[in-house]
Formats: sequence, structure tokens, C-alpha cells
Amino acid sequence: MKNFRDEDALVREIARHFLPGSGRGLRLGIGDDAALWKPKPGFASILTSDWFLESSHFLREKHPPDSVGWKCLARAASDIAAMGGTPRCFLLNLALPAATSGTWLNGFLLGLRRAAKFLDCALAGGDTTRSQRILISVTVIGEIREGRELLRSGARSGDRLYVSGVPGEAEYGLRLFRKSRGRMNLKNEALRKHLYPEPRVALGRWLAERKLATAMMDLSDGLSSDLARMCTASGVGAQVDPGKLPLPHGMDRESGRQLALHGGDDYELLFSVSPRMVPRLPANFRGLRLTQIGEITAGSGVRVFGRNGKLEPLRAAGWDPFRQKK
Amino acid sequence: MKNFRDEDALVREIARHFLPGSGRGLRLGIGDDAALWKPKPGFASILTSDWFLESSHFLREKHPPDSVGWKCLARAASDIAAMGGTPRCFLLNLALPAATSGTWLNGFLLGLRRAAKFLDCALAGGDTTRSQRILISVTVIGEIREGRELLRSGARSGDRLYVSGVPGEAEYGLRLFRKSRGRMNLKNEALRKHLYPEPRVALGRWLAERKLATAMMDLSDGLSSDLARMCTASGVGAQVDPGKLPLPHGMDRESGRQLALHGGDDYELLFSVSPRMVPRLPANFRGLRLTQIGEITAGSGVRVFGRNGKLEPLRAAGWDPFRQKK
Repeated sequence: MKNFRDEDALVREIARHFLPGSGRGLRLGIGDDAALWKPKPGFASILTSDWFLESSHFLREKHPPDSVGWKCLARAASDIAAMGGTPRCFLLNLALPAATSGTWLNGFLLGLRRAAKFLDCALAGGDTTRSQRILISVTVIGEIREGRELLRSGARSGDRLYVSGVPGEAEYGLRLFRKSRGRMNLKNEALRKHLYPEPRVALGRWLAERKLATAMMDLSDGLSSDLARMCTASGVGAQVDPGKLPLPHGMDRESGRQLALHGGDDYELLFSVSPRMVPRLPANFRGLRLTQIGEITAGSGVRVFGRNGKLEPLRAAGWDPFRQKK
Repeated sequence: MKNFRDEDALVREIARHFLPGSGRGLRLGIGDDAALWKPKPGFASILTSDWFLESSHFLREKHPPDSVGWKCLARAASDIAAMGGTPRCFLLNLALPAATSGTWLNGFLLGLRRAAKFLDCALAGGDTTRSQRILISVTVIGEIREGRELLRSGARSGDRLYVSGVPGEAEYGLRLFRKSRGRMNLKNEALRKHLYPEPRVALGRWLAERKLATAMMDLSDGLSSDLARMCTASGVGAQVDPGKLPLPHGMDRESGRQLALHGGDDYELLFSVSPRMVPRLPANFRGLRLTQIGEITAGSGVRVFGRNGKLEPLRAAGWDPFRQKK
């Protein structure tokens, strides 16, 4: 496939991969100065924007381009799911080296289109330019029925703490990916979760619509870091029983716990539920495991039950681009 | 000023520079997974997102950090003005080398805050990470009364073609800036326009509210490139009389014309007006010059009157990151 030598041609190539930009609230999509959007009556808009950068978030030579396309949209859409909303459209800012505007771009757009279809989320616009590294910034616009949004700040002492899925699984998948040297078994759940995470839109919407949770956020940097943020926002503390954490398949208990507590990139939902709502929560939501892992406490800070059964402070040791060396 | 070693601290520092994120339709700003936004009743949302990258759009060592802060928001907001809308809030994606997270960041945030105040546009959220170069992606959300948006596609044969301000002035300012070697006279209009452009929000809104224009867009890449896009979108042609183009102060006629036709970064408005509305258009709108520079024709393509008085095709020779060598 040839490389692009003209910005308008590149924009046409991007637009060609997607449905005409309208419907579902999007009144005018790609092709003008800006997009026009209006949610359903009685709904408000949710706005979120995320980086996805070569070298920081993916490796150009190692990650399949279609995984880059899928994941850049999926992880941004996860922030919409984290409030209980539904993603509806997105803006793609893409900066490319000339050498990647052919075959790499094609694979990227195929993955992005698959994610857009999976999420029922239309391309609304964006910006393209040239750069030395591949730079992606994705803005997702969603909608939520007014007053139903689930914030980080709603957790109250005594609420039970839940996670969806298997926290740490994506980080385990990253380890498998690093060892894979190009031969990847996509039937492996953890590897699939690293490459093609699925934001928990249906679960988030269900919890919000039925007012089952008091606070919610997505797990992107790791449970220890993200739960600390929820506690700060809500002005509460939390205690976690690591023995209750589901472990990634194929991991021993101790390494599994470390990954579950500190591994990033999961895009599972972390939410608190008041005790009277707990009986209404199933153990599985459409095949997705929901696990009670602890509870919200008065005070501040996150503590875990250690091996001796005593509570110990949990250090926030998830992903932080400004703290970690790579 | 110290550099940041922790993403949460960086986010707090950014938030500290801005008003609490609410009001004017923004119901929940920075600090949660996503922002909540709802325009006034009877209005739709306008969405746009723009790159502003070190080396491509600004030079870290040469451009004042507060100009980078001002301009990254101003140019994205210009796309909202280009549809006749009003910018209301924005998402800031910022990736920084550790060495720029102190003094440079402070200057950047001061410029960004000034632009946000000038535009009455609130910080709604975004994303931060670390990178080798300074990377900025700004998404602006605006509002427009339903049905009043001015698109690129509305121009009709016989409409008169207008520009605001002095196209080419920003490119002239860039030349002065390159020569300035650090000593800058900010009383110079062209230099100010390169460093601190002012999107034409009031003019765009006025034209849209009064239904005075048939099509509109902003001049970001240069008149020859942008007018060609308007013509393609509208399925029309255009002819331009370069003799009518206002010239940047201090330039001779021939160089001034070249800059006016092909110079980028102006963020002026280009719009078409049906002949019966022409009498309602003033020569100045609140001190901003409005100039009739030609008209929309049947057919396709942009032509200019050459020195011999004959019409010649105008090559689209504005800014294109995929075409131009730097």
C-alpha cells in the first residue's frame, strides 16, 4: 500500500474505513471544521480524552497495528463506561511518520474500525499531521441519562467494594506478550486482554441505570493506585482482602496477588455498593465475574489484610509515567 | 520551580491554574474519569480536536511557553468559531519531558489560562504522560443554536466571498519571529498574531445567528488550500481578485499577495454571502475588517485574476504537513 503525500488524501483514507458520520446523536461527522453532536433528550454528554503513544503505550515493531487501533479507542471508551455512560462518537488525532502511512496505517484503521463497530461509536473528526513517532490522542463522547452518572466521589463508609473480571490479567498478558517473540496464541485470555481489551460498557450502564453503585471508576493504572484515588475523591478509606481477588489463570497465588493489586491496563470496573443493594448484585453479569474484594471504611487510606491476617497500608504502586523507569 | 515526579501532582498543578470546572454547561470538570457537559436548551454541541506539537507547530527553545499555551487553545477554538459556535470547555492532553515540567510548564499554563479566560472556556479534563518531546492535543467543546451552524458546504454560485482581518499576517509574523533572535516587539500586529492569535468567535456567532453567510470555515492552512476545500465541499468554484486582498502592514504588494494567498496560521474566517445579504454586511465588525475578495462560481476549482487581468488557476499551496519540507 502506498504512503500518503497529502493530508486531505490521508483524511479521505481514514474516513473511508468508517460509516458515514451521522446517526446516534452525531449530526455532522468528519469533513467540516468541527462535528455536531446532540445526545438523546434527557441525556447529558460525557467527554474524555486519552493519549496512546509509541514507546510509552505500544511498540511499533512489536504490537500488531490492529491492536493499536483497537486499544486506543477501547481504553478511552472505558472512561465513559466508568461513569455508567454509553460511548457514541470519537475524534481521532493521529500523527504519523511517512513510513507508517501505508501498511501500518491500514492495519491500524482495521483495528480501530473493529473497535468502533464493537462499541457502536462513530468517527466524528480529528486532526492529522506528520511526526517522527506515531502519536495518537483519542477523544470519546458518550451520553448518560441525567443524574445517573456514577462518580469517584460517592463511596461511603460501610459500602462493599467490587471489581469486575480479573484485575492483573492484562499485566500478565503483557508478560506473555513480551515473551512471545511474534508467535501469539490469541486464545489465551490474558494475552487477548492486553491486545484487545473490552471496556465494560454494558456493566457500567446497568449499574448506573439501576442505581446499584455509589461510586465507580475504571482500573487503568492498577487497583492500588486507582482505589487510592477513589478514596481521596470520596473522603473515605478502604480495606481490601487480597484472598478474595480472582487470580489470572496460570499464575501462582503470590505473583497473582501482586499483579491483581498493582497491574495496570485492565479496564475493569471498580465500584462500591451500599449494603442494602448487595443482594441485588449477581456473581456474574452476562458472563463477567463480579467479586466483592473488601469494603469502604471511615478515615482515609487503603489497607490490605497481610499474611498474618493484620491490616497493613497498601502502597499505591500502579502505573505512573512520571514515577516509573522503563 | 520544581519538576513533577508523580502524575497526580501534575494534574493538581494544572487544575490549580483554572477555575473550578463547572458553570456554562460544564457540570463536572477535571478530577473524575470523564467530564459531564450539557449545552443550553435548544443548542447542540460542537466538537473539535487539534494537534500542537513541538518541532511541527512550535519550537521549545524559541517560542515563549505562554504563547504555546495560548495558541494551542486559540487555534482549536477557531474551529468552533468557524461554524458560528461559542467555545465552552476543553480537554487538555499534555505529554512532557521531565525537564519541562517546572518553569516551562508554569509559563505554558499561564498562557493557557489567559486564553481560557479570554475565550470564557473552562478546563474540563484531559490526560497527562511523559514523552521526549512536548506533545499537546486540545479538544474544544462548543455550543450552537440548533440549525444555525455554518458549514463548508453551503456556498452557492453567485455568492460573494469574504475574509476577516488580514490573511497572510500570521505568516509575516512568523518571518519577523524567525528574525527576532529573542528580542520581540509585541506591539507589532503581525508578530502578535503569530504568537497570540485571537479566534473570531464574536464574528462567527454574529454571522450564524443572523444567517448572513451561506458557508464558513477558518483559515488555518492558507487561503489557496482552504478555499479549495470549501469549493469541493460545496460543489462550486471560486474566483479571487488578489488586488482586493488587504496586505500585512509593512509588506510590498507582491510578497504581501503571496502571503495572503498561501500563508497559514491566520485563524481568520472565510465566508460566502448571498448577494441579497451583502448590503447588511458592514466593512468592519467591532473593529475587525471584513473584505470582499471575490465570488463563488459554477463549476469547480479556484481561479485568480492574474497581472494581465485574466483568470488563472490558483494552486493550493498552503500548509500541508505531508507535502512540505521544513
